[in-house]
Amino acid sequence: MSITHPSGFRAAGVPIGLKSTGARDLALVVNDGPHHDSASVFTANRCKANPVLWSEQVVRDGTVRAIVLNSGGANCYTGAEGFQTTHAVAERVADVLDIGALDVVVCSTGLIGLRNDRDTLLAGVDTAYAALSGDGGADASRAIMTTDTVAKQVLVEREGWSVGGMAKGAGMLAPQLATMLVVLTTDAVVPAADLDRALRAATRVSFDRLDSDGCMSTNDTVSVMASGASGVTPDVADFTAALTEACTDLARQLLADAEGADHEIAITTRNAASEDDAVEVGRSVARSNLFKAAVFGNDPNWGRVLASIGTTQAAFDPADLDVAINDVWVCRNSGNGEDPATIDLTPRQVTVTIDLKAGDQQATVWTNDLTHAYVHENSAYSS
Amino acid sequence: MSITHPSGFRAAGVPIGLKSTGARDLALVVNDGPHHDSASVFTANRCKANPVLWSEQVVRDGTVRAIVLNSGGANCYTGAEGFQTTHAVAERVADVLDIGALDVVVCSTGLIGLRNDRDTLLAGVDTAYAALSGDGGADASRAIMTTDTVAKQVLVEREGWSVGGMAKGAGMLAPQLATMLVVLTTDAVVPAADLDRALRAATRVSFDRLDSDGCMSTNDTVSVMASGASGVTPDVADFTAALTEACTDLARQLLADAEGADHEIAITTRNAASEDDAVEVGRSVARSNLFKAAVFGNDPNWGRVLASIGTTQAAFDPADLDVAINDVWVCRNSGNGEDPATIDLTPRQVTVTIDLKAGDQQATVWTNDLTHAYVHENSAYSS
Repeated sequence: MSITHPSGFRAAGVPIGLKSTGARDLALVVNDGPHHDSASVFTANRCKANPVLWSEQVVRDGTVRAIVLNSGGANCYTGAEGFQTTHAVAERVADVLDIGALDVVVCSTGLIGLRNDRDTLLAGVDTAYAALSGDGGADASRAIMTTDTVAKQVLVEREGWSVGGMAKGAGMLAPQLATMLVVLTTDAVVPAADLDRALRAATRVSFDRLDSDGCMSTNDTVSVMASGASGVTPDVADFTAALTEACTDLARQLLADAEGADHEIAITTRNAASEDDAVEVGRSVARSNLFKAAVFGNDPNWGRVLASIGTTQAAFDPADLDVAINDVWVCRNSGNGEDPATIDLTPRQVTVTIDLKAGDQQATVWTNDLTHAYVHENSAYSS
Repeated sequence: MSITHPSGFRAAGVPIGLKSTGARDLALVVNDGPHHDSASVFTANRCKANPVLWSEQVVRDGTVRAIVLNSGGANCYTGAEGFQTTHAVAERVADVLDIGALDVVVCSTGLIGLRNDRDTLLAGVDTAYAALSGDGGADASRAIMTTDTVAKQVLVEREGWSVGGMAKGAGMLAPQLATMLVVLTTDAVVPAADLDRALRAATRVSFDRLDSDGCMSTNDTVSVMASGASGVTPDVADFTAALTEACTDLARQLLADAEGADHEIAITTRNAASEDDAVEVGRSVARSNLFKAAVFGNDPNWGRVLASIGTTQAAFDPADLDVAINDVWVCRNSGNGEDPATIDLTPRQVTVTIDLKAGDQQATVWTNDLTHAYVHENSAYSS
């Protein structure tokens, strides 16, 4: 059930003093091979944190041997000194593992603008190295938590090989990724080019369709490493399916733990002219503060859904839209449908189904409701 | 200080029973001429309410003689029957005033999906007609209120002519207009074509730069009528300036009365490569729930400003951005600047200044903070 379940990986998660609580705040994940194939995707935000700027260079050749992650500081907008800190951390990891620094991905999460003490981080790398073990995955998953209330792990098992994963992220979840760090491991034999295609396919329908609060982070990173230790070379389609299953599971765990959320809302747009149209429509509803506040208030306000759909460029007839909330078709042909009073919005899981009647494509976008707790968490504390 | 200050206009605002509180809920504004030039802009939402679908046809020839507005129901997503209600109301106004129905703009605001009783509306038109008077502007401005806590009026006086205005809107304020109804009057002589250009110029830098909660309404209408009763033909530039002054004043009144807001935030982006870039950057910050919640918490969180800027396509160097909050440059060259602790965010007015260092254009976008009261108003009540 962790990143160290697949053969060929060791991990550690240790407290090094970045978090004032004394909790674990540095994770190290090492791929002992025999292969070191990898692929990564990063935030689409143009204002990228220093670890992202560093790691984008590292992953280019398809080889990654270790990933070091810290919570307690995002190392973002910390200038040249911050970049040098990222570089120094990668060099220290390379030293202790006797590998090259350009095979070390660095991830950071926490407050933007905060400078972490470099010596603390470097000493922390030594501590994490000493703690590396073949069952250190759970500790690593705890060390990357920030406002997360639970650690997030996944394991997808196949005949002779598996995919493990861990994730952190509880706010700033948005399309194109958002303060979300994800490490995936597999002992399957998967060449870097295939890994890259599989990861892009998997993230496109999982993390990229999660839009908790519309905010895009500066630090998001999703990395997968393949050790090949199982000796099994799966069919590319089978591997992509397993990776997609792992990513989707982690995405749902992120949604379930989103800051202050009372509801998890799955918005499915069907009969769209294209998948892009379906995603655009789902995203527009996921971005509506008015609709999200209505769900918090257990109010099946379909008018706010239609008002959001109307802001998109998707193909549809504004006079002929159907909308269901929890499978009750409250809006038919852009007018009143079944009685909204029959809808029970008290359970945490909510479904919104939109029928565009414009084609045969569909997509689901996930979001949360807008609650007092969300406002509280994001106004009372800096993050 | 109202739409009936300019010569040639009569107005009324009466209670007709749409609002359960018994408050005024129908307004009628009549242009007695001698001219009947007009111009209007409507919501950019593709899901338009029935009164918008009607009025878009009415305004095409540049002649409008009366505007009838009701609160207590948006007449949106009410199907063919709802459109017939709008049509019937316009016909009744035409009957009592002995004009053509195609010179009558209709506006509605309130809950989406709700059908208002047609007979109540038609009887209400008779009541409003009987109450028309040369100082009825204030009553009319009260009759269009929904969750507004105060009526919004403006008067801009020039030598021999003036511009009056009223507005409603407290939520769903977004770019391209949003549940916002605005009626402007002038006794200047302004041909319809000039009026149209002036109105588009005025709304572009006022209502279109207001983004309270990112939600775009289905009913927004801004209409201006020119009676020519003063006999004065102002220079087009002078008239445009006066109309812009009136629109900007009303926009600020809408912002000041936005649902649940604790702060009014003016986001000025300067040294942009283009005005469009400046607006896009300002809008991205205005849409950040994380930044808006931080302002509610009196937290000058400039990292959330940069994270928003990074989501845009505007021209800038991500490593060289400056940000000031209340004129304290907390971020210099995309890193820490002056001490944020010196910033006092307790006053209602907040300024954010972003220096893109990419040109010489600028624009200001206005928004509000994200508060518990916003969540409460939009979750506890349907609207």
